[in-house]
Order: sequence, then structure tokens, then C-alpha cells
Amino acid sequence: MPGPIVLRDPEEVRRICDEARASGKRVGLVPTMGALHEGHLALVHEARRRSDFVVVTIFVNPTQFGPNEDLARYPRDLEGDLQKLHEADVVFAPDVAAMYPPGDETRVRAAGLAAHLCGPHRPVHFEGVATVVTKLFAIVGASTAVFGKKDFQQLAIIRRLVTDLFLPVSVVGHPIVREADGLAMSSRNAYLSADDRVRALSLSRGLSAAARAFGEGERRAGTLRGLVHAEVERAATSIDYVTLADVDTLTPIDEASLVGKRALLAIACRIGGTRLIDNLVLGEDPPPHAQP
Amino acid sequence: MPGPIVLRDPEEVRRICDEARASGKRVGLVPTMGALHEGHLALVHEARRRSDFVVVTIFVNPTQFGPNEDLARYPRDLEGDLQKLHEADVVFAPDVAAMYPPGDETRVRAAGLAAHLCGPHRPVHFEGVATVVTKLFAIVGASTAVFGKKDFQQLAIIRRLVTDLFLPVSVVGHPIVREADGLAMSSRNAYLSADDRVRALSLSRGLSAAARAFGEGERRAGTLRGLVHAEVERAATSIDYVTLADVDTLTPIDEASLVGKRALLAIACRIGGTRLIDNLVLGEDPPPHAQP
Repeated sequence: MPGPIVLRDPEEVRRICDEARASGKRVGLVPTMGALHEGHLALVHEARRRSDFVVVTIFVNPTQFGPNEDLARYPRDLEGDLQKLHEADVVFAPDVAAMYPPGDETRVRAAGLAAHLCGPHRPVHFEGVATVVTKLFAIVGASTAVFGKKDFQQLAIIRRLVTDLFLPVSVVGHPIVREADGLAMSSRNAYLSADDRVRALSLSRGLSAAARAFGEGERRAGTLRGLVHAEVERAATSIDYVTLADVDTLTPIDEASLVGKRALLAIACRIGGTRLIDNLVLGEDPPPHAQP
Repeated sequence: MPGPIVLRDPEEVRRICDEARASGKRVGLVPTMGALHEGHLALVHEARRRSDFVVVTIFVNPTQFGPNEDLARYPRDLEGDLQKLHEADVVFAPDVAAMYPPGDETRVRAAGLAAHLCGPHRPVHFEGVATVVTKLFAIVGASTAVFGKKDFQQLAIIRRLVTDLFLPVSVVGHPIVREADGLAMSSRNAYLSADDRVRALSLSRGLSAAARAFGEGERRAGTLRGLVHAEVERAATSIDYVTLADVDTLTPIDEASLVGKRALLAIACRIGGTRLIDNLVLGEDPPPHAQP
């Protein structure tokens, strides 16, 4: 099977996507930062299912990294990634100067949604995400774009900007893909030592404990968050947050029982030096770990 | 001759523009806030010349007005405007809730360009402009959009965001249209009393004096600005700025003689209670007033 075409130039991607559309094809987009794992490939598969011409972007976007974050050491493996992308038609792998030429300064932000959860801990992150995704939507002209729910806040912000800016693209959220033992897949899992890898299970184990309690009728944020905390605080170097939030606004809520409102239980912490996130929509997502 | 179709719903505008494009028509866009004058109609004429299906938007955009600005009393005359728009195919006149539905919070900004000239005096203005124009581009899907050069900084910011966000639209700047006596046309001229109207000529007269000096070899910012100041300070209630700026970056410059760089001479002041702006690209735009 031939591999995907690899393109570096935004205008070439635009041209090839224009041609695909002109021939009646629906264009699907999966933006990634590469270092692809099964989670990414599930997104590509979903895009394939929903469209006729699939563009996967591989771009480690500098504007979404803070000055003390892991931009320089973020895992990069374009050759390995291409081997895995047999469901893609085009891989768009621009360099930084192609996406941010000299003089570039336009930024897109959704301030309210970015104020919660990871926002206070990563001040520039979501503006960088919103900006690069807006660029990619315009270049590719996709009718469908697929994002993972592990980055739940990112997905919410992208849905928000698509609605607010009237962008003609349908945003699809894909369920978190987990390792057999429950760990949410992430390119950053590659940073984990063998010990860290064991400790990292505390996130999904904590979410499972809270999901079970929710299943048994528990609705109070304090108790649900406490169950996650109990698991994670033994394993984590530090905890950024364990929050029960309104799934739409991402604002913290005191209980999960408001009628018609789903509740997101989300966590960010450091295992060793690696920042990990995980989340669960209570009563909707299956617990990461089966009932013991 | 039949008048244009008037639409209120963004999705209806999107649909009709999609249809126009599908039938091979090039779609042109002229965003306005209504209260149309000959300057606006020149933009519509330019859009007509460059495209096959012309959309004029009439929307007094609240996000580009500061709390102490003239949003409430900004002139509105939809019926009168429609009489003048025989060159438009569609007039898009949404209400505020259609453009900013509940929950809307995404904003677009070009911070560097917005830091100069009017930016410090109108802190939210250009973010409001950039945001609404990005929305209009997405709704209409225009291949060409025409803006006036009177709002030189606005035009620069729109060019910037189109480049930075890879938007598939060609931005055309149209020369300032002036009254016979030199006053730059503006919807806000309607605010001027008879006395103010006479005083308002000081802006174009000052620019003409500077243009003549430039024509005679003067290049120093201090002298060129001084010639404008001398005219305006006798007439204005207050002066926001008289600035010689790099046409690309809008940063203030000390002289107009840098090789290959054109210089913008721009002014903003208050005549009575009315804020007016005017500008001239030295050596490029004709002086507003003929040589006396």
C-alpha cells in the first residue's frame, strides 16, 4: 500500500485539498504534534470513516508551549509516524517558519474556557492551540476535523472557536484511547521511567474510583475529587488540579447532580518530571478500570 | 432595477454564497457599519468590478466600540442604505445576537499593529474589528474583500490576519474618497455642526501642507507633523496623535526618506465632540487639496 504524500508548504496543501473538494471529496483533518500512538491512529480512522480525503498534520506548535515547558525535548519521529499513517492521504508537516512567517502576530483566543483547568497552569497554551488550529482549518478547508477527548479543554475551546467564528467545519471528539491497564495514551508517556509508568496508573485508578462512587449515587464534588486525590497524591510529584467541572463552561461545580448537566472530572499532575492529564465525563464515559 | 436581497441569518448568507460559488461566481465582500456615503459606494463598485456576486454587510459591531464611545448614537439608516446599494446582490444585516450568540467569547487580535496610532486611544477597537471581520469572511467565503484606506490601521490589521490565519481571501484597499473641499468621507461627519464642518477641513488641509513640503524635499517627521499640527491645533478640541509611521509596521519613524519604505502620515483628533481620522501615504496618495 502506498504511503501518504508528505507536504511542507501550506499553499501546496491548500491546492491539493481544493482539488479534492472540487472532485467531490469530503476533506477530513486530524491535527497532531506527531509521536503518534494508537490514540492518534483512532482519530485518523474516525476521519477516514467520515471523509474521502484525510489530511493528518504533524506540527510541534511552538506557540502552545510556555517558556519552561518541553518544546525542545518533545518527542519527534516523522519517519516512524509516516509508517503508521496508511489511512492518511496527505501528511502536512510544515516547519515553524511556514506556519509563523516573519511578522506573524495574529492570535485567536477563547478567554473564558481557557481560564479554567489547565489554563492557569499553562498561560499561553490555549491561545497557541486556538491560533494554530484556526490556521490549519483555513489551509485544509476540512469539512470534518477529529480531536481526542483526552485534551477535553482543548476540544471545548476548538468547538467554541468554530462556533464563534462561523468556521465551516464539523468538529468530532473521539473517546480517550487507553493502554490495557487504563493509562490514557499520550506522546508524553514516552518520558516516563519504569517507576513513573507504574505511578502514572494512579490517574486512571482515581478516576475509576470516582466513577464507581458516582455509579453508587455519590454526587458531591468534594467526595468525588477526594477519591481521585487519594490515589494520585501517593504517586504524583505535584498536582495541578483535580476538578469537577461543568462540561460546557468548564467552571468548577459543587456537585454532579444538576439536571441535564453532565460533569467532567479532570486531573492534571506531574509524575516524576512528566505532566499528565486525564479526565472522565461522569455517567457517560466508561471507567478506565473494570470493577475490581 | 431590483434591489439587493436583505438577509439577517448568517447560515442563510452562507448557503446563498455557497450556491453562488458552486455556479462559478466569484464572491466579493464589503463589510460596513451602514450610514453609507460615497466612500462606501466606491468600495461596493470596486467589489462589483472584481467579482460576480457582491455581499455588503451592514452591522454596527458592538465589540469594536469602547464603553465611552458612540455605539448607541452611531448613525443607522438601513432603508436609506438599501436605496444606495443597487450594485450589491445581497445585503447582510444581522442583529447583534446573530453575530455574538450567548456564550460567544472567541476573539482575534493582531497585537503589534494594534499597539500604534488609534490603538492606545481605543483599547478594544481593533480586536473587535479583527473578530467580526474573521466571522464575516467565514460566513461569506468571499474571494475578494474591499476596505477603505481611511481606516488605514484597520486595513493593515485585516491584511495581517488574512496572511497569518491563511484565510483564502484577497484584501483590496480602496483610496480615501473625499468631499469636494477635501474632507475625508465618514459616517461620523453626520455628527458635525456647521461650525465643526468648517473646522474639520483642518485635517485634510494639514495633510496637504505636509504633502507639499514632502514634494519639495522635506523628510523630517518633526517638520511634517508640525505642518499638520499647525492646521489642526487651531480647530480641534483635542488631538489624539499626528504620527509619521512605517506603512507596514505602523511604528513611528523619524524621517520619511528610508529607501523603499513608504511613510504614512496619520492623524486623529476631536472636532467638537466628534472623533475624526485622516491619513496620507507620502509620495503616493494625491494631496487632498490642490496646490493653492
